[in-house]
Amino acid sequence: MADVIAVDLGGTNIRAARMDQAGKILARDRIETKAEAGMGQAVARLAEMIQRLRSKETVGIGVGTPGTPDPGTGCMKSRAVNIPDSQGYPLCPELTRLTGLPAAADNDGNLAALGEYWMGAGKGEHVLIILTLGTGIGGGMVIDGHVYHGHSNLGTEFGHITIDMHGRPCPCGTIGCFEQYASAIAVGRDTREALAKGTPEAKASRLWTLCGGDPQKADAKMLCDAARNGDAFANRLLDQSADYLAAGLGALLNALNPSCAILAGGMALAGDVLFTRVRAALTKNRAYAPIWKDCKLVPAALGDDAGLIGAAMIGFRKAGIEL
Amino acid sequence: MADVIAVDLGGTNIRAARMDQAGKILARDRIETKAEAGMGQAVARLAEMIQRLRSKETVGIGVGTPGTPDPGTGCMKSRAVNIPDSQGYPLCPELTRLTGLPAAADNDGNLAALGEYWMGAGKGEHVLIILTLGTGIGGGMVIDGHVYHGHSNLGTEFGHITIDMHGRPCPCGTIGCFEQYASAIAVGRDTREALAKGTPEAKASRLWTLCGGDPQKADAKMLCDAARNGDAFANRLLDQSADYLAAGLGALLNALNPSCAILAGGMALAGDVLFTRVRAALTKNRAYAPIWKDCKLVPAALGDDAGLIGAAMIGFRKAGIEL
Repeated sequence: MADVIAVDLGGTNIRAARMDQAGKILARDRIETKAEAGMGQAVARLAEMIQRLRSKETVGIGVGTPGTPDPGTGCMKSRAVNIPDSQGYPLCPELTRLTGLPAAADNDGNLAALGEYWMGAGKGEHVLIILTLGTGIGGGMVIDGHVYHGHSNLGTEFGHITIDMHGRPCPCGTIGCFEQYASAIAVGRDTREALAKGTPEAKASRLWTLCGGDPQKADAKMLCDAARNGDAFANRLLDQSADYLAAGLGALLNALNPSCAILAGGMALAGDVLFTRVRAALTKNRAYAPIWKDCKLVPAALGDDAGLIGAAMIGFRKAGIEL
Repeated sequence: MADVIAVDLGGTNIRAARMDQAGKILARDRIETKAEAGMGQAVARLAEMIQRLRSKETVGIGVGTPGTPDPGTGCMKSRAVNIPDSQGYPLCPELTRLTGLPAAADNDGNLAALGEYWMGAGKGEHVLIILTLGTGIGGGMVIDGHVYHGHSNLGTEFGHITIDMHGRPCPCGTIGCFEQYASAIAVGRDTREALAKGTPEAKASRLWTLCGGDPQKADAKMLCDAARNGDAFANRLLDQSADYLAAGLGALLNALNPSCAILAGGMALAGDVLFTRVRAALTKNRAYAPIWKDCKLVPAALGDDAGLIGAAMIGFRKAGIEL
């Protein structure tokens, strides 16, 4: 049975795994990126790691990376986060030159969506969207098993849809972006601001205890933990954050009519305490009922491996193997 | 050369045209729908019109209609506007039974987008979105020459993305929908409300003259006309409406990275007075610059025939002819 090398080329570490056509991880390895030394050295050491990991059955390479590799050519269209000279770098051509294997690359967020489609929470879904709640909100969409890239491979910036046109400015230049309200960072910031008011209710809350009485130490995870424990103050704050999340998600449902929406990232691990609220808000006034009824909303299933698994899928495709 | 019969099955009239592979209209006809008599009689009379219009070279039928025909089966999933018993009606199977020709059907808004892709303002565009500014805001998306339908053929309800999560309720059940701000009807309503305040500036405006001193007679067209004539009051109102339009359009650009966005419907005929403002707002703070830079924004080119032309395209495809 054929296998591929799947790669997650991050700004700090480069992870790689050999995977078979059933999506099973047969071997793993990891090296430091040493981003400051530039893209060329990182790719040279990645090629060495690939040579160590590959088997006689290895037919291709799939790479996920931040930034925008062109899925056609495998060259970096925009700079990969943290790696200074990565813009324009011929990532896949270089990997092929160094290993002799066909190579494909895509954005890591897109590949996380593809991984969840192949082996995870959105297995075989007709139209799948994913929101990764982290520093910002990463987006991805898979239609009939293929990543939607948009015209210039900048598609699915779902964190940058406007949900409040009179609202918070976003560094992207747009006003009222979704991620200014519902990313893990935004939820943490709102939590800290509410605590910092130092009202009697805030000080009496479990959240106050969890952050050791220092509002600046509070974050989205503490908020979800306190709400899960029935803390009224935290519950009210989380209702608000979940409503923000539902507002953006609902806009995407109405625009795209997906069969499945996946929430990923640390905040999605909060589980029912978050999902129950988001579902209630979507039902109440955040989505068009006939569209929402046709969509399932689920947490991501593959954690940090989602991107690697998606990378394997494009590696197989590049080698002519449709899974 | 092969031809097809393209049909626009509306609630008031049914229009049909025989069209060749170059998109040329060779013959046209039109009958009343007589919606109150039901779908069966309308389709029977449509079949007669098709038999009159067809040539020896006619290879298929394409039909656009309001509501949601299933593009796979050609049966009506939801009721077509105004035709009482249309839900579930086997539209294409019946047309095929009555004429012997293969038939395909799709939503009329989707086919308008496809028509603009084939012969109009978005000719050959990689990823095209269309916003039809009318009673509401109709949406459509064409990716690589194919209509995007979403999971359950309810896709691209672009009029129902939230642009103000604290804003105006929409009959669809979602709060702050785009079409509550930027449809021709919404713009007309905002214009009437501003005039009805009867301020000295309102009464001194050209808009006041255009509506004959009766604010209730004002509409979006009068607003654009007055603004084009340099009326300061109208200019301020149109700035606001154009900003609303840019907020929703910008969200769609950020989410979907299209190569082309088309504005259609009566309001899009306003031309530069509207487009200049929308472009300025997108540039200022309504879209992510790298995505907006890769998108052209243009008025629809085909007017009322866009849907017919799109219908011809699916008729040819159903007959196995890719254009």
